[in-house]
Amino acid sequence: MAHLTSSVEYALHCLLWLVAPDAGTPSSRDLAELQGVSPAFLAKIFPKLEKAGIVHAAPGLRGGYRLARPAAEISVLDVVDAIEGVKPLFACQEIRGRCAVFGEQAPRWATSGVCGIHAVMLRAEQAMRSELERSTMAALAAGVTAKSPKGFPAEVRLWFDGRVGKRIDAKAAANRALRSESADPPPRSKPA
Amino acid sequence: MAHLTSSVEYALHCLLWLVAPDAGTPSSRDLAELQGVSPAFLAKIFPKLEKAGIVHAAPGLRGGYRLARPAAEISVLDVVDAIEGVKPLFACQEIRGRCAVFGEQAPRWATSGVCGIHAVMLRAEQAMRSELERSTMAALAAGVTAKSPKGFPAEVRLWFDGRVGKRIDAKAAANRALRSESADPPPRSKPA
Repeated sequence: MAHLTSSVEYALHCLLWLVAPDAGTPSSRDLAELQGVSPAFLAKIFPKLEKAGIVHAAPGLRGGYRLARPAAEISVLDVVDAIEGVKPLFACQEIRGRCAVFGEQAPRWATSGVCGIHAVMLRAEQAMRSELERSTMAALAAGVTAKSPKGFPAEVRLWFDGRVGKRIDAKAAANRALRSESADPPPRSKPA
Repeated sequence: MAHLTSSVEYALHCLLWLVAPDAGTPSSRDLAELQGVSPAFLAKIFPKLEKAGIVHAAPGLRGGYRLARPAAEISVLDVVDAIEGVKPLFACQEIRGRCAVFGEQAPRWATSGVCGIHAVMLRAEQAMRSELERSTMAALAAGVTAKSPKGFPAEVRLWFDGRVGKRIDAKAAANRALRSESADPPPRSKPA
């Protein structure tokens, strides 16, 4: 299995749609349907992004998510850590202390400091994290903007607006149904 | 789960014992018992290291494993790749092509080249791999030598020699038993 899961991939792709200043506040269901991914899966991802201060949830019919801070201040590493939590590249089992030559108790020289093998892995992990830290959501979004046609952002906005419109229409229809129900005469009570 | 498994950890620790010029050719069972790890587990690791040209198997009672090339020419990355095979940091699912705005067919601008998110992950993976490549078994072994007492290598050699001695004694005893058996008069056949 890959080290970084599809949750990270989905989170990054979703956040890309929130970078534009006029991105609005799409819901996680909107974002799932825009991208053809499972709404139930995305619904579990967004609370983690919110908890990490990456997105802010707006309530209401027009509600959904927006970035909680500028896209230039959200690194890919921030998103990875928000989704995956602490997930080491390598889990040292301190094998060095188990050497049969040591008998019952390993000497201090053998177990003091970080194991040399673990140290290499920590350096490799740091190199990976530094690279993820260098990349921001703003830079990723700029890459998409650079390759997409000029009219694409408007098309996306239209798609999202359509979704909000549908929610508002559905809510209005539900309200009308509710009003017409309460306007009906109550059923006649039987004579005592 | 950590990205790099305990198989990588065990392999690196085992190889450390093979770096000294007079390391001999310990068996995978010797190395397992020296380090208090499962012999069955190590027995599965060594064929991978052999296939990758990292160790060479020597047959016979004194047989076991030795490094197949100088320790300075075996990087931690070589060992990781030998054990883990191709294991990407991130598995891109090409989500960018699924955008609902595209309809049935994603336009070429959207799916040409490497996905921007995947590109970040590939750079992070390369940074990690470069760091693992920079570290060699020779450098790791030098780190152990620098911190261990002068007499430690001799103690380890003695422990390995003891193992070989036991195997030779056991084989000699088995041979004696076999010879004394074949020297016994054959059981008398019953008269017809």
